[in-house]
Amino acid sequence: MADADHRLPPLAVSLGDPAGIGPEVVCKAWAMRHAHRLHPFFAIGDRRSIEAVWDGPTRSIAHPAEAAAIFDTALPLLQVDDPGDIEPGRPNLAGARCALDSVELAVGLARSGAASGLVTGPVAKAQLYAIGFTHPGQTEFIAERCGVAAENVAMMLVGPDLRTVPITIHMPLAQVADHLTVELIVSRARACARGLVRDFGISEPRLAVAGLNPHAGEGGSLGREELDIIAPAIAELRAEGLQVTGPLAPDTMFHAAARVHYDAAICMYHDQALIPLKTLYFDIGVNVTLGLPLLRTAPDHGTAFGIAGSGSATPRAMIAAIALAGRCAVTRANA
Amino acid sequence: MADADHRLPPLAVSLGDPAGIGPEVVCKAWAMRHAHRLHPFFAIGDRRSIEAVWDGPTRSIAHPAEAAAIFDTALPLLQVDDPGDIEPGRPNLAGARCALDSVELAVGLARSGAASGLVTGPVAKAQLYAIGFTHPGQTEFIAERCGVAAENVAMMLVGPDLRTVPITIHMPLAQVADHLTVELIVSRARACARGLVRDFGISEPRLAVAGLNPHAGEGGSLGREELDIIAPAIAELRAEGLQVTGPLAPDTMFHAAARVHYDAAICMYHDQALIPLKTLYFDIGVNVTLGLPLLRTAPDHGTAFGIAGSGSATPRAMIAAIALAGRCAVTRANA
Repeated sequence: MADADHRLPPLAVSLGDPAGIGPEVVCKAWAMRHAHRLHPFFAIGDRRSIEAVWDGPTRSIAHPAEAAAIFDTALPLLQVDDPGDIEPGRPNLAGARCALDSVELAVGLARSGAASGLVTGPVAKAQLYAIGFTHPGQTEFIAERCGVAAENVAMMLVGPDLRTVPITIHMPLAQVADHLTVELIVSRARACARGLVRDFGISEPRLAVAGLNPHAGEGGSLGREELDIIAPAIAELRAEGLQVTGPLAPDTMFHAAARVHYDAAICMYHDQALIPLKTLYFDIGVNVTLGLPLLRTAPDHGTAFGIAGSGSATPRAMIAAIALAGRCAVTRANA
Repeated sequence: MADADHRLPPLAVSLGDPAGIGPEVVCKAWAMRHAHRLHPFFAIGDRRSIEAVWDGPTRSIAHPAEAAAIFDTALPLLQVDDPGDIEPGRPNLAGARCALDSVELAVGLARSGAASGLVTGPVAKAQLYAIGFTHPGQTEFIAERCGVAAENVAMMLVGPDLRTVPITIHMPLAQVADHLTVELIVSRARACARGLVRDFGISEPRLAVAGLNPHAGEGGSLGREELDIIAPAIAELRAEGLQVTGPLAPDTMFHAAARVHYDAAICMYHDQALIPLKTLYFDIGVNVTLGLPLLRTAPDHGTAFGIAGSGSATPRAMIAAIALAGRCAVTRANA
């Protein structure tokens, strides 16, 4: 799988909240574009959020097609105006509006084919809610813009040798069991399998499905969800011809020797998917949205307002997100 | 901290279910006693369960005091009769009775001071239940035999640079939130802190307390247990003079850079404690019971009937359990 194919359109990278670490890590990623052989990309956001944290070269573009020629010598920037004051670490409503406009523009460019895919910088949910945003996160917003129902979208966390997909995501742990259904598990697992084929080039993906309860319920004595919901979902997926194992005991499926047996772990809740991923790969995890017509990745971290403007943010996850988007774009294009 | 002090009494190691991998891994641990500088120990169980899987030297003893002199040349064995047939991989009720008798004898010897501590081999719960055993596991049985209430006992999982303590253990995930109380968290965290002082020689232990919900509840929007239960428990522990941080986001507290900031992670449920430990240290995890008058460790694996008798069981966890018990015995003796 090639890292980049310069005949493909560039990637669109939204800077996220202008007061967060998004602008800084995107600029740092551009600065390391050669070492990581990154596919050409352009940033979408406000120039001032970059100038507040970075002294490197940027060049405004009017259209994505201009990005490739510029990429070698300057960070190409598609300007989205932020009419507010920009101060790193101090988010405000105008910044949230700028972040949302940037994502929306990036989605449009990716859908039209002007961009090969979309990498999103981190946004601040509290600020977005204050300007009327009603989605749990960027992922659901992007899905809606693409006309895809939320249950047909899968969020996949990607590390060097581990991919996990949570079936339920942002809800209290006590509500997880009530939200699990055969249909939801089947929909998300199916989106995951298709994504592994289309974006990762894995022709016959192997899915490992976790149980919900300790020891995967121990035959029903520690919970019945494995028997009543998870096993029937696995049976349905197998009937579709997919390679699926489980329900597996959640604590013994993520170590190195276990990971080689599957391409993605289907997890029942947020921390079941995130704990193993972040324990192993804290600052290089990439969030990939599967099930969309467009390609979308994101670094698996937040705005980190506490360190924004200090210059200390590590670009490792953003670099990993851009690198992965580039590889997936090549895979899609060559399919 | 010295690995072993040969003036202390030996450790008692129960073989666990005679048809499981317990006898094999204990014998293999003895064979590697020099390389790992193991504190002298003696096995408790049936001789035939050893002879079925091992050709090395054993020597029967009538009392633990005889073990030290023998340990260098043969595995000292305190016989507990198993009147049934012993066939590796084929558990039966007589074997369960033998396993239970072995633990009971080991507890008595550790309580009397004839043994410096107790290491337990794996037992089969289904078989134990069939002979009238009513405890969730060996830990609760041992606690009762020691006259300690279950809530004052903490199960700690130990890896090379990570220790985790689950507050709730063997119950369906959907029931966890209902079982969490300020009192239970305080009791178990206190037992953990005392154990770190007494058995690990950490004079001022630092505890990191996990949240229950994704992002530790995000200020109440993803669950209120952090605000209503966990934070008050932390306040109470701090009022007792303990160093406690939290509630922490569960997914970002177990990576290498985070682990250096605490001596033990207090976790809200089984898999929150077990997933990070087993993802990192699958076959060397040790289970330590804190809060008992006696010292008790165990390898963090089961009977593995599927491979019993094949000779392929790794003794790494049993060696780690015996090594840790030896170090803790020295720490206790020197306090």
